[in-house]
Amino acid sequence: MSEVAGRMSIQAGARALEKSCAGRGMLLGGVPGVEPAKVVIIGGGMVGTNAAQMAVGMGADVVVLDRSVDVLRRIDAQFNGAVKTVYSTVDALEKHVLSADLVIGGVLIPGAAAPKLVTADHIKRMKPGSAIVDVAIDQGGCVETSKATTHADPTYIVDDVVHYCVANMPGAVPLTSTFALNNATLPFIIRLANKGYKQALLDDAHLLNGLNVINGHVVNKHVADALNLPFVEPKQVLAAV
Amino acid sequence: MSEVAGRMSIQAGARALEKSCAGRGMLLGGVPGVEPAKVVIIGGGMVGTNAAQMAVGMGADVVVLDRSVDVLRRIDAQFNGAVKTVYSTVDALEKHVLSADLVIGGVLIPGAAAPKLVTADHIKRMKPGSAIVDVAIDQGGCVETSKATTHADPTYIVDDVVHYCVANMPGAVPLTSTFALNNATLPFIIRLANKGYKQALLDDAHLLNGLNVINGHVVNKHVADALNLPFVEPKQVLAAV
Amino acid sequence: MSEVAGRMSIQAGARALEKSCAGRGMLLGGVPGVEPAKVVIIGGGMVGTNAAQMAVGMGADVVVLDRSVDVLRRIDAQFNGAVKTVYSTVDALEKHVLSADLVIGGVLIPGAAAPKLVTADHIKRMKPGSAIVDVAIDQGGCVETSKATTHADPTYIVDDVVHYCVANMPGAVPLTSTFALNNATLPFIIRLANKGYKQALLDDAHLLNGLNVINGHVVNKHVADALNLPFVEPKQVLAAV
Amino acid sequence: MSEVAGRMSIQAGARALEKSCAGRGMLLGGVPGVEPAKVVIIGGGMVGTNAAQMAVGMGADVVVLDRSVDVLRRIDAQFNGAVKTVYSTVDALEKHVLSADLVIGGVLIPGAAAPKLVTADHIKRMKPGSAIVDVAIDQGGCVETSKATTHADPTYIVDDVVHYCVANMPGAVPLTSTFALNNATLPFIIRLANKGYKQALLDDAHLLNGLNVINGHVVNKHVADALNLPFVEPKQVLAAV
Amino acid sequence: MSEVAGRMSIQAGARALEKSCAGRGMLLGGVPGVEPAKVVIIGGGMVGTNAAQMAVGMGADVVVLDRSVDVLRRIDAQFNGAVKTVYSTVDALEKHVLSADLVIGGVLIPGAAAPKLVTADHIKRMKPGSAIVDVAIDQGGCVETSKATTHADPTYIVDDVVHYCVANMPGAVPLTSTFALNNATLPFIIRLANKGYKQALLDDAHLLNGLNVINGHVVNKHVADALNLPFVEPKQVLAAV
Amino acid sequence: MSEVAGRMSIQAGARALEKSCAGRGMLLGGVPGVEPAKVVIIGGGMVGTNAAQMAVGMGADVVVLDRSVDVLRRIDAQFNGAVKTVYSTVDALEKHVLSADLVIGGVLIPGAAAPKLVTADHIKRMKPGSAIVDVAIDQGGCVETSKATTHADPTYIVDDVVHYCVANMPGAVPLTSTFALNNATLPFIIRLANKGYKQALLDDAHLLNGLNVINGHVVNKHVADALNLPFVEPKQVLAAV
Repeated sequence: MSEVAGRMSIQAGARALEKSCAGRGMLLGGVPGVEPAKVVIIGGGMVGTNAAQMAVGMGADVVVLDRSVDVLRRIDAQFNGAVKTVYSTVDALEKHVLSADLVIGGVLIPGAAAPKLVTADHIKRMKPGSAIVDVAIDQGGCVETSKATTHADPTYIVDDVVHYCVANMPGAVPLTSTFALNNATLPFIIRLANKGYKQALLDDAHLLNGLNVINGHVVNKHVADALNLPFVEPKQVLAAV
Repeated sequence: MSEVAGRMSIQAGARALEKSCAGRGMLLGGVPGVEPAKVVIIGGGMVGTNAAQMAVGMGADVVVLDRSVDVLRRIDAQFNGAVKTVYSTVDALEKHVLSADLVIGGVLIPGAAAPKLVTADHIKRMKPGSAIVDVAIDQGGCVETSKATTHADPTYIVDDVVHYCVANMPGAVPLTSTFALNNATLPFIIRLANKGYKQALLDDAHLLNGLNVINGHVVNKHVADALNLPFVEPKQVLAAV
Repeated sequence: MSEVAGRMSIQAGARALEKSCAGRGMLLGGVPGVEPAKVVIIGGGMVGTNAAQMAVGMGADVVVLDRSVDVLRRIDAQFNGAVKTVYSTVDALEKHVLSADLVIGGVLIPGAAAPKLVTADHIKRMKPGSAIVDVAIDQGGCVETSKATTHADPTYIVDDVVHYCVANMPGAVPLTSTFALNNATLPFIIRLANKGYKQALLDDAHLLNGLNVINGHVVNKHVADALNLPFVEPKQVLAAV
Repeated sequence: MSEVAGRMSIQAGARALEKSCAGRGMLLGGVPGVEPAKVVIIGGGMVGTNAAQMAVGMGADVVVLDRSVDVLRRIDAQFNGAVKTVYSTVDALEKHVLSADLVIGGVLIPGAAAPKLVTADHIKRMKPGSAIVDVAIDQGGCVETSKATTHADPTYIVDDVVHYCVANMPGAVPLTSTFALNNATLPFIIRLANKGYKQALLDDAHLLNGLNVINGHVVNKHVADALNLPFVEPKQVLAAV
Repeated sequence: MSEVAGRMSIQAGARALEKSCAGRGMLLGGVPGVEPAKVVIIGGGMVGTNAAQMAVGMGADVVVLDRSVDVLRRIDAQFNGAVKTVYSTVDALEKHVLSADLVIGGVLIPGAAAPKLVTADHIKRMKPGSAIVDVAIDQGGCVETSKATTHADPTYIVDDVVHYCVANMPGAVPLTSTFALNNATLPFIIRLANKGYKQALLDDAHLLNGLNVINGHVVNKHVADALNLPFVEPKQVLAAV
Repeated sequence: MSEVAGRMSIQAGARALEKSCAGRGMLLGGVPGVEPAKVVIIGGGMVGTNAAQMAVGMGADVVVLDRSVDVLRRIDAQFNGAVKTVYSTVDALEKHVLSADLVIGGVLIPGAAAPKLVTADHIKRMKPGSAIVDVAIDQGGCVETSKATTHADPTYIVDDVVHYCVANMPGAVPLTSTFALNNATLPFIIRLANKGYKQALLDDAHLLNGLNVINGHVVNKHVADALNLPFVEPKQVLAAV
C-alpha cells in the first residue's frame, strides 16, 4: 500500500498546486523556459522512493531527505543523479521545506506514531500557495498542522498552504490497490488456510510481526510503547492459546 | 500553450481515472506486480509529445498515433523506444481507443475545426470507467461526445466514459502559463512596440500567420475555410491600410 | 550460465519469429509506426532479468511475471518502469501468454524439475506463428509441449507455435560462455586445489550446496526429492570419508 | 524499409556470430565479467542509426563511422554518449573494421551503386570468426567480397569472416515490413488515386524524386550516372506525356 | 571547436571550485546526502549544450538560460527533463547567476563581440568562492570582469569569484582538438585544393560565410559592424579578383 | 570519503590528461567524430562505482575490473550496460591497463596495505601521456610506482605516464567532504556522547570495527597483520578497561 500511496502522493500534490485548489498555479514539471516545481520528499523509504519516481518522471526538481546515508545512496544509484539527496538535519529540513513548492511527508515508523517533522512554524513560513501531502496521516501525520480528510473533500488551507491529508489514499484507486494488496497478502492467506493461524504465525516471522493484539495482550513492541500499554512476547501468548 | 495543455492532460487524466471521479480506480503507472494504465495519445504534435513525456514518466503503457511517419520517428528516437508509435488508420485508431484506459485527444489543426476522430460509437464500446481528455476542445474537440467544461466542474460521464473537456486547460496553472506565454510572445511584443503593427506584420511571416481578421477581412485561410467566408491575402489588405 | 541463456533466449526468440522459421514474421522491436512484439517472460530470476534487459533494449513490449513482489519491485526499479511487472497467478499467466508474440520460459528451481506452467492447452490457443523459448529445458522444461532440441535443428512446431528448446543454449556462444563459466568457477577451483575437496567443501557453504552425490549418497535435498531417493546430510557423509 | 533492414542487421549479425554459423561464438552483449562484441557500423543514416539503437540496446560496444560531423552529432545526442562516433577516414575505417567482431555496412547512396568501403584486403585481416552484414547488397554492396544470398541460405565464409548478404532483408519479417511499407506509401497512393499519376507527380517533389524511368527516358540523375545513360529532366518528359 | 570548449568548460569549472584554486571546495556532483553544485549555463547553443551534457553527467544541478524558446525545447527533449531550462530575461539571469556555484558564459555571436551579460555588479554579489568560466573570451568575453588568461596560469580572483578565462581552451586537449578541427575542415580543404579558392568560395555558401577579409575589404557583416568598417558584398569582391 | 575520492578521481584524471600536465591532450569524453578516452577502473567497490558514474557521465569509454562476479553484476545493472565489466585476472588487467588512456586504482582492503596490482613494468609499457590516479595511496597505493603527492603539486611523471597520487583527495573539496563526513559520523558521535565510549563500542559492532588501538593493544586484525604486531580481541581489552 505504501507504493500506491507514494505514487498517488505526487498526483494529489500536482492537483493541490492547481489554482482551483488554491495552490500556486504551477505545473509540476514546468515547460521549456519555465521552471518546474521544487518537490521536497521527507523520508526515502518505500513511500518516498515511489513518490520520487513519479516526481522525476513528471520533470519536477526533486529533493529527498533521509537520516540514513545508505538509503540516500540507494536512491542516488537508482535515479542516477536525477534526484538530489540530502542528509536530514533540523537545518537541512527547514531550508528545503521553506523553499519547496510541494512537500511530501513520507516518514512512517511501523506501528508507531509518525514524528512531527514539519512544524506549524514551518507552515507559517512556507511560500503562499505551496502544498503539502501528509502520507503518514494514517499514523497521526508527520506535519503538525495536518488532520485527516476524505476523498470527497481532500484539501484544506492553513496559513496559505494547501494540505492534502486523505486518510486512505489508496482508496482513490481501488482497482490497482486491490490487486496490489492481494499480491502482497495472498501467500500469507494460503499459509493461514493450510496451517491454521497458530502454526502459521509460529512458522513465519514476517506474519508474526504483523500480529498486534491477541487474547487481550499487546504483542507488538511499537504499538505497546505508543499506547503506553504493557508488551508481551507474542510467542509466549501463542504457546498458551 | 500546447506544451502546458499537453502536460496538464495527463495530470487531469490521471485524476479522471480515480474512483471519486467515477473512473476505473486505476493508478496511471500501476505498482510492481499490478499493470499500469494504457494511455492512447491521438496526435504526435506538441500536445501529444508533451503528454507522452508525462505519461511515460509516470510509468504508464503509452501508444502514440499519428498520420506522419516522420513524426512517429521523432517520437521513437526521443523516447528511445519507451513509447509505442502506431501509424493512424481507421482500424488502428479503433483498436487502440477501445483497449485504452485513458485517451488523450491532441489533434489540432491551426485555425481550423478539429476532426472528430473518436466517435460516439467508440465511446459506447470503450471500457466502463475509462477516461478521455479532449485537448482540442477549444477548436470544437476531436471527440464526438465532447462539450466544453470548466475548472470548477471539469468532468461529465457519457456511456460510462469520464470526459474531461476543460476549455482553457492552462488556466489551471496560471503561474506556469503566464511565464510560458510571456516567453513565447515577448519577442513579438517588442517588435510591435518598436515598429508599429503594420511594419512588424510585414517584416515577420510568423507574426503575419497569427493575423486572422483585419479591416473586416478574414486573412487566415484555415479560418476562412472553416467559417465559409471569403479569404483575402493579408499582405494585400495591409498594403491598403 | 543463466545470464548467457537469458540473453541468448531473446536472440533465439527474435529469430524464431522470422518467417523462415515459420514465425509470425515480426521484428521484435517493430519500427516507428508499426507495433513491436509482445514478449512475456515467465520468472524474474537471473534468466528473466537478463532476457528482459535484451528485450527492452531491442524495443519490444515486455511483461515479466513472477510470484514474488520483491522480485517484481527489483525489476521495476532496475528498468525504471520500462518493463511491465505482473504478479503471477493462473489467470494472469494465461491472459499474457495467450496475447504474446514471444514467450520466454525462465522458471528454474535449483536441482528440481521445472513446473509445467505453460500447458498444451495454452499452446493450442496462442496466436499462430507466435514463438516460445523454454530456457528451463535442461531441467525438463516449463512448457508442457517442449522437448529438447539441438543447435543444428533448434526449432519445431506444435499447433502453429514455434518451439525453441535447445538443451545447451550457452553452447551457441562458447567464447562468451567459457569466460563466464571460468569467472564463476575459478575461485572454487583455486580453493579445491589448495585445500583438497573435503576441507574445501566443509569450509564453504556455497560449494557444499553444489554437491549432489558422494559415496553413493544423494546429499542435495531437491535432487533427492525429485528422484524419490533418500536424502543424507552432506556434512555427515563428508565427516565419514 | 531502411529502418527494418537496419534493425534486422543486428539480429542477423548476432546470429552470424554464433558457433553454428561458424562465427566466433560470442554473445553480442557479453555478460557481467565478459566483454561484449565490438560492433562497427559504417554509415550513420537511417540504416546505421537503427542498427546502433539495437546494438546499444543489446549491450554491445558500438562505433559509428560517417563522413558528416552533423550526422555524428545527431547520433551522439540521440544516444547520449553511449555510442562512439568516429569521423570516417581511410585510416579510421581500417582501424575499426580490423578490430571489430561485427561490421554493419550501411552506406546507401539513393539510386546509385554503393561504394566498396570494406575491401577484400580488410576481410583477410579481420579476426577469424568475425562477421559482416552488408545491408547495401541490394545496390551492389559496400563490401568487396559480398554477393547476394537468400533467407534460406543467408551466410557464407570468405577468409574466416562470416558474410550475411541477404538481398531482401525485410522479407524475413513480412508482417512488420508490410505495415511499414504501407505506412510510408499510403499517402502517395491516395494522391495517385485521387489526382492521376501525372498531376500527382507534378504536385509533389518527393513523389517525383521516386520516378526513375518514364516513356523510355531515365529521369533520375543518380540512376542515369550509375548506368551511363543520358539524364532527362522529369518535368520536361511529364509535360510532354 | 565550440564542442571541445563547451565540454572543457565544465572540467575547468569543476577544478576552479576546488580549494587549491580558491574556490568553494565543492564537488560538482556532490555525494549522496550532500547537495551538488548549481551550474548556470548562459546560452543554449553548441557551447551550452555540450557544457550541459558534461554537467548533467557529473551529477550537478543544471540550469540553461537562452532567449529562444525553440532552443530550450530542444535541450529539454535531449536531456529528458534533467536540465532546467529558463527563458533569459534580465531578472531571470540575475536570480540564477547570484545563486550559482558555477557560471558558464557561453554566448557567442559569430564574428561579433560577445554581449556583457554578467556585470561587475553581479560578480560582487555572487557567493564567495563561486566560479565563472567565460568561454566567449576569444570574442571579448560575456562577463564584464573577464580578461584573457593562459593554460599556464588559468584563473584569477575578482571579488572572491574565481575567473577562468583561458583564451584558447581547446589548446589544453590538442589531440582531441586537432582531430575535431580536421574533421570539420577536411571537406572544405579538399574542395579548396580541387577547385581553387575563388571557385570553392563561390560554390559553397558555408565556406563563403567564413570569409572575413579579401583584397583589403571586410566582407563579413558582423565583423564590419563590430569594427565600424565599411561592409562589402563578398561575391562582388570575388567577381573582381 | 570513498565516494568523494572516487568522484574526484575522474576530475583529477581528466586534468592529468591535459597537455599542461604533460598528458596526452585528450578530452575525456571526446567530441562527436573524435573518440573518447578509455578509462580503466581497477576495483568495483565504492571508489570504483563512483568513479565509473562520473566517467560514464562525461562520455568516456569505461571498463571496470573486479574479482567478484556479483560486484560486476551490480555495476552492469546500475549502468544498464554502459560500462564494460571485466573479471580481473592477471591477463585481463594487463590487456586493459596497457590500452588505457586513464587508469583509476581503486582497490582498498580495509585496514590493510593495498596490493600492487599495476607494476612498474606495466607503467613502462603504457601509452606515452596516459595517466594514472592511485586512490589507494593512503594505504600505500595499488601502483608500484606511486608515491604520495599534495594538492599543491599533485602530479609527477614516470616513464611518460602522469601519476596523480594526492594522499588526501577529499581535501580538495572540503565543503562537500565535511558534510559527507559529518553525515557518516554524526550517528556514532551522538551515541558516543550519550553512552560513553566504552558502552557505545560494546553496543555497536560497526563502531567497534573502527577501533584500531586501545591501551597499547592492536585490536584490528588487518592492521595487526599488516604491521606484524600481535592482535588482541577488542571486547577482551574493553572489558578490562
